[in-house]
Amino acid sequence: MTFAASALADLESLLVDGGSVVVAESELVRHGEDFSIHPARRPDAVVLPASTREVAAVIALAAREGVPVVPFGAGTSLEGHVIPVAGGISLDLTRLDRILELRPSDLTATVQAGVTRRQLDAAARRHGLQFPVDPGADATLGGMAATNASGTTTVRYGGMRRQVLALEAVLGDAQVVRTGSRAAKSSAGYDITSLLVGSEGTLAVITELTVRLHPVEESGATVRAAFPDIAAACAAAVDVVAGGVLVTRLELLDAWNVAAVNSYSGAALPERPLLLIDITGAPAAVDENLAAVADIVGDHGAADVVLERDDATRRALWRTRHDAAYAVMATAPGKKPRSTDICVPVSELPAAITAAREAVDALGLDAGIGGHVADGNFHVAFMLDPGDEGEVDRARKLDGLLVDDALARGGTCSGEHGIGIGKRAYLAREHPDLIPLYRKLKGVFDPHGILNPGKVLP
Amino acid sequence: MTFAASALADLESLLVDGGSVVVAESELVRHGEDFSIHPARRPDAVVLPASTREVAAVIALAAREGVPVVPFGAGTSLEGHVIPVAGGISLDLTRLDRILELRPSDLTATVQAGVTRRQLDAAARRHGLQFPVDPGADATLGGMAATNASGTTTVRYGGMRRQVLALEAVLGDAQVVRTGSRAAKSSAGYDITSLLVGSEGTLAVITELTVRLHPVEESGATVRAAFPDIAAACAAAVDVVAGGVLVTRLELLDAWNVAAVNSYSGAALPERPLLLIDITGAPAAVDENLAAVADIVGDHGAADVVLERDDATRRALWRTRHDAAYAVMATAPGKKPRSTDICVPVSELPAAITAAREAVDALGLDAGIGGHVADGNFHVAFMLDPGDEGEVDRARKLDGLLVDDALARGGTCSGEHGIGIGKRAYLAREHPDLIPLYRKLKGVFDPHGILNPGKVLP
Repeated sequence: MTFAASALADLESLLVDGGSVVVAESELVRHGEDFSIHPARRPDAVVLPASTREVAAVIALAAREGVPVVPFGAGTSLEGHVIPVAGGISLDLTRLDRILELRPSDLTATVQAGVTRRQLDAAARRHGLQFPVDPGADATLGGMAATNASGTTTVRYGGMRRQVLALEAVLGDAQVVRTGSRAAKSSAGYDITSLLVGSEGTLAVITELTVRLHPVEESGATVRAAFPDIAAACAAAVDVVAGGVLVTRLELLDAWNVAAVNSYSGAALPERPLLLIDITGAPAAVDENLAAVADIVGDHGAADVVLERDDATRRALWRTRHDAAYAVMATAPGKKPRSTDICVPVSELPAAITAAREAVDALGLDAGIGGHVADGNFHVAFMLDPGDEGEVDRARKLDGLLVDDALARGGTCSGEHGIGIGKRAYLAREHPDLIPLYRKLKGVFDPHGILNPGKVLP
Repeated sequence: MTFAASALADLESLLVDGGSVVVAESELVRHGEDFSIHPARRPDAVVLPASTREVAAVIALAAREGVPVVPFGAGTSLEGHVIPVAGGISLDLTRLDRILELRPSDLTATVQAGVTRRQLDAAARRHGLQFPVDPGADATLGGMAATNASGTTTVRYGGMRRQVLALEAVLGDAQVVRTGSRAAKSSAGYDITSLLVGSEGTLAVITELTVRLHPVEESGATVRAAFPDIAAACAAAVDVVAGGVLVTRLELLDAWNVAAVNSYSGAALPERPLLLIDITGAPAAVDENLAAVADIVGDHGAADVVLERDDATRRALWRTRHDAAYAVMATAPGKKPRSTDICVPVSELPAAITAAREAVDALGLDAGIGGHVADGNFHVAFMLDPGDEGEVDRARKLDGLLVDDALARGGTCSGEHGIGIGKRAYLAREHPDLIPLYRKLKGVFDPHGILNPGKVLP
């Protein structure tokens, strides 16, 4: 459907708290795409609600009229989650940007869905606390909860599902519900909180979250270790995990990624497979864990091991890591970035990464491999012309090979990017027995089928 | 319904893998009660399946005949979960007692539902690993997952929901499903795993679990601190949490509990409010955290502070803590133990415990207060004659007062014992907006309404 002038007037009349409707061309374009290669599709209108009440009113109208509603945050999704494939309303939640309450003694904060992770982290740091989940982009917390985002610190703190204690959300019938509580744990009823986290806007629109905060660590150090080959780097990562060494980040960059990073950031990292390992805590604990890590990387033949204790140098090194995605983009301006996202049991990592490298080479792709190896999650990243059928076909083949390999190893098709548009067939491959159940759950939460249609469910 | 001889023969014919049907009086009695005060009710038959296939066959028959199926593990539930209030089949899963796979490098194990936590922990320790969740009783892991059990180590490692990576479960229509994966994290599809954890056998019968294991800590120490009053003990606990001190256990016993423990265990603990604090990790880290804890408890007027580093002495002290439930029972032989289970945001703990003590005194109950205070979860424990209406009425009044107080403080009616029979009205008080959703989910997973009827849903 498209919006007639009268329908727009109807929408505007619902926004009693200062929200607005936007149909400016540039905003329709911006809300029709994300960071993925999936074809853009403009929404019919962008609605920026200013309150939960307005979100509910918009959803009530959409349910009545059968109009799709696609939640939109920072627009940094990697799997097309925010693309309104069936048109309708792009529900931009970025005006819900208030930190409602920060409770340092409870190590929790309650925020509106449009608050970004950096905004919350900055507020937390004024109390000696942090919000550690870092998917790279400065995503909104509502969006991060919707995809169960994680990142470099997940090995230590867990991803979004572990952080979210409570939600306010609007269901597909416009009912506003509150799940969970502010208590650190609960055994009260079915866990709707965990069900909505990772549901990618298909079951409800998240409007408010209560999340855990964590104390800022007293001290830290970063180890940068270069290995003779990627298998040795992976084996070292496996041993760090199996040895129970308390690390805060444990990241792999292969030689391809390091070269891209050097070129983009002007860094001078050794262009061999690298592990970047961050260790934080009380000073003595950091020293002990550092010694354990040094032993392990040495055992696996790391030749070039640098230990950084200076905070500014560490931050610069981690900025380099976080810029890796942009470094990849800079290798082929005009193309779009593409990233696989499988996650395997950690012991399977060396074999899985070897298999991935073989698949990349067999397909003739120019790609790097890196990732959150302590969680068994890695990304093959490369650039792609979405208009080049051959390139798209090779990317699809790579996806399929890697997903099949991950599933055969007891892993999953998505470690952190979610299903969105692009992985629906893989979800069916991973959980064929659950798909009918998913459909029934969708029917319970979104009886009119208006919430983010065309996502998650195959 | 009751089972005719022909129905029993039908049941037995389904058990092709060596399972059995039991109708011996003693077994019907044992399967008709748990540790709670809820009235016992015998099942019509006890079925002990020997395989998932047999579980599915029994559920298929029950669905066809409309017979209730109530999963049973160790029978140590505290809220009547395993009592077959509508008769039918008690499905005893204790013969599913095999550890199917233990993967030390992945820090995971896959077990059948009837494996107990101590059985898994002992197997894990042969690899330098542990399974830390400890609800007190040596419960089965299926049962612990079903109630999202937690315990003294939850402040450090999280409760069951955080441990469970994957499940095999049989739905109410006899379909066998597999949720999750063996990967450490996933963003693939709706989180059915977390939904089934804590669903108390009302959505599915858990037959197999993949859980996280954790490295055994290198060293440890235990602090025992006696406080002038319970408010000071609570305030110290709040400061330990807010200060980000890494503790593995942080338990409160009030003077009443300490007296019970001394009498039961022959211990000679100071009969004042005590905090027991366990700190584990690398030696230097333990030292640093010990120093931080010593400072905090000193600031709150702890006079009698004992530091134990000897492992045997520490184990004995923690055994004393774990015996507290039995110590309470020994205060009134012949009566049944009763325990409240609210959980509040940690900063609310001193006020919540003060309010609980006032309620206990106003009702004239002879009760102790203790709990997992770093999580904000505490129990008022006392003995009760279930046949004495006055006593039961006072216990109910206490429950209601405490739940209302917890909810007003942003907490929950159940920190770890679950809803079962006894807290259904409180669940409705806590999540009135979610109850219709719960009912619909129940309909999706258990369309014939045979799985553990009379539990969770009000």
